[in-house]
Amino acid sequence: MIKVKGKSRVVIENVQPQVDQGLYPAKRTVGERVDVTADIFGDGHDHLRAQLLYRRQEDHHWQHVEMRHTYNDTWLASFYVPDKTVYLFTIQAWVDHFDTWYDGFKKKAHANVDVHVEIKEGVLLLKGLSKEKNERLSLAVSELEREYSTAIAYVLSKGFEKLVHDFPHIEHETQYEKILEVVVEHAKANFSSWYELFPRSASLEGKHGTFKDVIRLLPRVASMGFDVLYLPPIHPIGKVNRKGKNNNVKAEPGEPGSPWAIGSDEGGHKSIHPDLGTLDDYKKLISEAKKYGIDIALDIAFQCAPDHPYVKEHPEWFKQRPDGSVQYAENPPKKYQDIYPFNFESDQWMDLWVELKSVITFWIDQGVKIFRVDNPHTKPIPFWQWVISEVNSEYSDVIFLAEAFTRPKVMASLAKVGFTQSYTYFTWRIHKQEIMDYMNELVYSQSRNYFRPNFWPNTPDILPFFMQHQGENIFILRFALAATLASNYGMYGPVYEFYDNVPMEGKEEYYNSEKYEVKRHDWKKTNRMTDIITLINKTRKENPALHSTWNMQFCHIEDQNMLAFLKATDDLSNIILVVANLDPHAKHSGFVQLPKERLKLGDRINVKVRDLLTDEHYTWTQEWNYVELDPFKLPFHLFKVELHESYM
Amino acid sequence: MIKVKGKSRVVIENVQPQVDQGLYPAKRTVGERVDVTADIFGDGHDHLRAQLLYRRQEDHHWQHVEMRHTYNDTWLASFYVPDKTVYLFTIQAWVDHFDTWYDGFKKKAHANVDVHVEIKEGVLLLKGLSKEKNERLSLAVSELEREYSTAIAYVLSKGFEKLVHDFPHIEHETQYEKILEVVVEHAKANFSSWYELFPRSASLEGKHGTFKDVIRLLPRVASMGFDVLYLPPIHPIGKVNRKGKNNNVKAEPGEPGSPWAIGSDEGGHKSIHPDLGTLDDYKKLISEAKKYGIDIALDIAFQCAPDHPYVKEHPEWFKQRPDGSVQYAENPPKKYQDIYPFNFESDQWMDLWVELKSVITFWIDQGVKIFRVDNPHTKPIPFWQWVISEVNSEYSDVIFLAEAFTRPKVMASLAKVGFTQSYTYFTWRIHKQEIMDYMNELVYSQSRNYFRPNFWPNTPDILPFFMQHQGENIFILRFALAATLASNYGMYGPVYEFYDNVPMEGKEEYYNSEKYEVKRHDWKKTNRMTDIITLINKTRKENPALHSTWNMQFCHIEDQNMLAFLKATDDLSNIILVVANLDPHAKHSGFVQLPKERLKLGDRINVKVRDLLTDEHYTWTQEWNYVELDPFKLPFHLFKVELHESYM
Repeated sequence: MIKVKGKSRVVIENVQPQVDQGLYPAKRTVGERVDVTADIFGDGHDHLRAQLLYRRQEDHHWQHVEMRHTYNDTWLASFYVPDKTVYLFTIQAWVDHFDTWYDGFKKKAHANVDVHVEIKEGVLLLKGLSKEKNERLSLAVSELEREYSTAIAYVLSKGFEKLVHDFPHIEHETQYEKILEVVVEHAKANFSSWYELFPRSASLEGKHGTFKDVIRLLPRVASMGFDVLYLPPIHPIGKVNRKGKNNNVKAEPGEPGSPWAIGSDEGGHKSIHPDLGTLDDYKKLISEAKKYGIDIALDIAFQCAPDHPYVKEHPEWFKQRPDGSVQYAENPPKKYQDIYPFNFESDQWMDLWVELKSVITFWIDQGVKIFRVDNPHTKPIPFWQWVISEVNSEYSDVIFLAEAFTRPKVMASLAKVGFTQSYTYFTWRIHKQEIMDYMNELVYSQSRNYFRPNFWPNTPDILPFFMQHQGENIFILRFALAATLASNYGMYGPVYEFYDNVPMEGKEEYYNSEKYEVKRHDWKKTNRMTDIITLINKTRKENPALHSTWNMQFCHIEDQNMLAFLKATDDLSNIILVVANLDPHAKHSGFVQLPKERLKLGDRINVKVRDLLTDEHYTWTQEWNYVELDPFKLPFHLFKVELHESYM
Repeated sequence: MIKVKGKSRVVIENVQPQVDQGLYPAKRTVGERVDVTADIFGDGHDHLRAQLLYRRQEDHHWQHVEMRHTYNDTWLASFYVPDKTVYLFTIQAWVDHFDTWYDGFKKKAHANVDVHVEIKEGVLLLKGLSKEKNERLSLAVSELEREYSTAIAYVLSKGFEKLVHDFPHIEHETQYEKILEVVVEHAKANFSSWYELFPRSASLEGKHGTFKDVIRLLPRVASMGFDVLYLPPIHPIGKVNRKGKNNNVKAEPGEPGSPWAIGSDEGGHKSIHPDLGTLDDYKKLISEAKKYGIDIALDIAFQCAPDHPYVKEHPEWFKQRPDGSVQYAENPPKKYQDIYPFNFESDQWMDLWVELKSVITFWIDQGVKIFRVDNPHTKPIPFWQWVISEVNSEYSDVIFLAEAFTRPKVMASLAKVGFTQSYTYFTWRIHKQEIMDYMNELVYSQSRNYFRPNFWPNTPDILPFFMQHQGENIFILRFALAATLASNYGMYGPVYEFYDNVPMEGKEEYYNSEKYEVKRHDWKKTNRMTDIITLINKTRKENPALHSTWNMQFCHIEDQNMLAFLKATDDLSNIILVVANLDPHAKHSGFVQLPKERLKLGDRINVKVRDLLTDEHYTWTQEWNYVELDPFKLPFHLFKVELHESYM
């Protein structure tokens, strides 16, 4: 009948971070901070204390951190996660009679109320504080047992305050009913710079490119400062129903087709397109890239061309139609007869899952650690949950980037079930308020605990309307925003570098898209864009404040075309302030406000800011500071901020 | 290793109502509607269908209600709870291949795409739809097997659309992992009108009042339309350290003391103050009140005067101090030496809990069903959870009103653990935006599922600042707001009726408070306030729209002093529109907007509104309508709204 712990008077609710009621772990990367909050309250006016308990999964002993009350019964404590493992945490809270007594004693003593009995109570409390003999406590008892006024003075001293703090009076504590998880991944999950190119367009001589050509491009990619080189699918391309230039339904003879129509008589998802080279060439590319600190990312597109070997070998993995044909992809009335989707409702679903997993592990065994997953939202979410957890249990430091440009809850779900990084709506967030709302949602909502954004200003599928038929200003601006707002970002590189801005009329797609043809890029050329990319990537590497998305805070600036935000390390040893002019056509200016509380600035301000691209520098002695940006010079400032020591 | 149901492709998340992850049930009262929402999504473009499953706890078979997609992957379905029991609900969702096929077929047929194979697929789907022979399905198959163009026309017909709707193709369904609870209580939990008076001031002759005097007042209370008569504690009052007039530390001889200082040599929590009468008198009061449809509410104040019998009989239930004295209540440096709180951390806590429960059940056995619980936030929340659940398991239709004027999360927690109704911040919500924000929080946030507000414009403890030294306008306004915004409301009656507006200087307390003395009220007098109370309570009873707090919706009205809101039954058979002028000193006017969507109004509006107090009536043919209110006439309109049938 009576099941409760009768003397436990404290309630602990709403513990965060907690993803879907603890169904999924919260995510962090090595070295990050976990801010734990909870609603904690009891009855009456007695003082509460609370502590956060955390440990690595493999450890036995809990670490304790005192929580502090912020406001409205919310309590906070933080811990860092230096190790790549799973951390567990929970919370304990109790009515602290020692602290309650201490507070009451002070108020009574200050009001000259008689405290003879209170002193006796204090002695009893002190004696109960530790089971073992403790010198500080024994000393305190003897102080309290001295003459009345001496005892009062002692309790009112600084030393006694510290004693109360150091000796929590833990009794009848409430233990939060769950133990929650934080999965800690390697740093690259949180900080990476992606460059995408089609290897078949990598030739310097205008032929069909090969992995060897890509190897020759590595110094170029590395000198620009990228650390992930992502190649679209490298497998044999279907010959049946192959698509032609500009997505024509029929390819002309000799047209190469789309790399996402995977599989032919030359092999499937574990094979290499013969025109690109051999498996050994690919492995050579991986190892050469490693020398430059670059990871080669593989595209995972779980779908088949009609001539993919699976279609014959495993007809049970595809939907068979009543006329004996295989179901192709469609979005009625449109038909995509070059693509057969897998039927995940196949009776042989388990064999299918296992085979698809083996595709991923095959490539990991060749040296791949990073996968960009094509349209994961068109395959069952439970499949991803299973396959990613399987792979992670066997291999470490694997990154899965979800290419799901779809509805918000579906994108969220893919991130929750295990995707390391996700493409985002950044591509279409143009105006000041849009950018601010989206960033604040990513950083300050529940999303922060599972969704790691990777910002792309373009992809082979997307040339956004507002970049069409536009000059270089908007390309520079959008790149700078992507690379500074988010710690993970990428670009579909060669066309971006050279401002390719010609769309299929009325669509957000490229005209003469590289998806359907081999392109010739002038790989030997560099330009202003190349220089800015190089400088910003260098700045990203050198400034730890830019290694995180989560430390971002917008700063007030009045003009609707001006955007300002700050990123800083927890210890303020590295501070970056970005100010951008979002209007590519005209100069704008405004006063930007320094976030005084975050920067721990007093009333006398003395801050040095230096633009890391132009080397312009200013000393700011006011909270609000004038900034002017001409997009035809440079549409943004990337300031390093230095706080003058004497005012720290 | 593989634990998931491999073919189930649908995700169900964020199911509501769900209080603290299902830790507590959601609350409803008999006849109310439960709106169930969930985030439901799958992969790709296949069509989903979902159904809500619900049943009474004691039944075996689930009822099914089709859910419909609203927006952003949120789905909705509702059910009504006609019975006073616990209802269970959960959700099921699946990829519906029949619906997907149907949608694709229509698009292809309209685009003149060949659908010979699709027709064959349709036949297969129809044959799989029911395990038993079904005439409609057989007929459909034979229609599809007719000539090509006939078959197409058949699928495009209205009849086929209905067939698709009537035959969900349930396969590989996802079942939400939890079964959630809705506790349904009796109607009075949601609709009650409280009048508070001190029985010791009930005498018509100016003597110490008795229960017999209260019986003589019943016709008066009933004629005003109240259905709960709440009396402060009726037990013997402590004689030791008794408080005097205006909360003086020492009572003069003959002063009656505060009824909340319970217990003396005359008895404790199960005894009756001898000056009020006998237990039989009290039972007589209960039975006489019942004849008028009035419940007598008892005050539960779990605390003791120093001479309460418990103090001697159960010293273990109190905190003993080192000098041999018992710990009195305090808020340092203030001392409340007339009150001993129970020590809920007593080693004998279980005996204490059982005894306190027996206090409640003792009074239930005398005929009491409604308890106003004094300061529940100063007793452990786990105790309330236990005692309320114990009482509810033995007795039905008991109401516990939590008198917790404290921090929001503590008030929420008391409601979650079982209190039927709660005092609120309404008492201090004066301005338009404050009232709107607070009401919207109560009605449209999670709070709606556990926190039933009971609005009081005053209590014996609270004469709000803005009603001090003010005339009758503000009293009329605040009463009208309380009684129409909330379906549960109450007033500390006699002083409210007669506009007692004199405070203890600088405090929100009454001067010469009835808490510390016997007052003489002119019970034979009535005034304009009495008349308005009578009319509004009559209106409340006669209009089902006012039996709920949850059907409230604010209407736009421009003036910052004007507030307008609508309440309507689900079927729109009863609609009330309240418009109030919040400024007690001046006339204001504005245009109020009819909520067209809620009222299902088309472009041609023809609405009759009649003020139920003044009988003024208007015909409104516009969406925005002029309203003017002079507080010196009446500060509000209480319109009954009638929709002209031809435009329904």
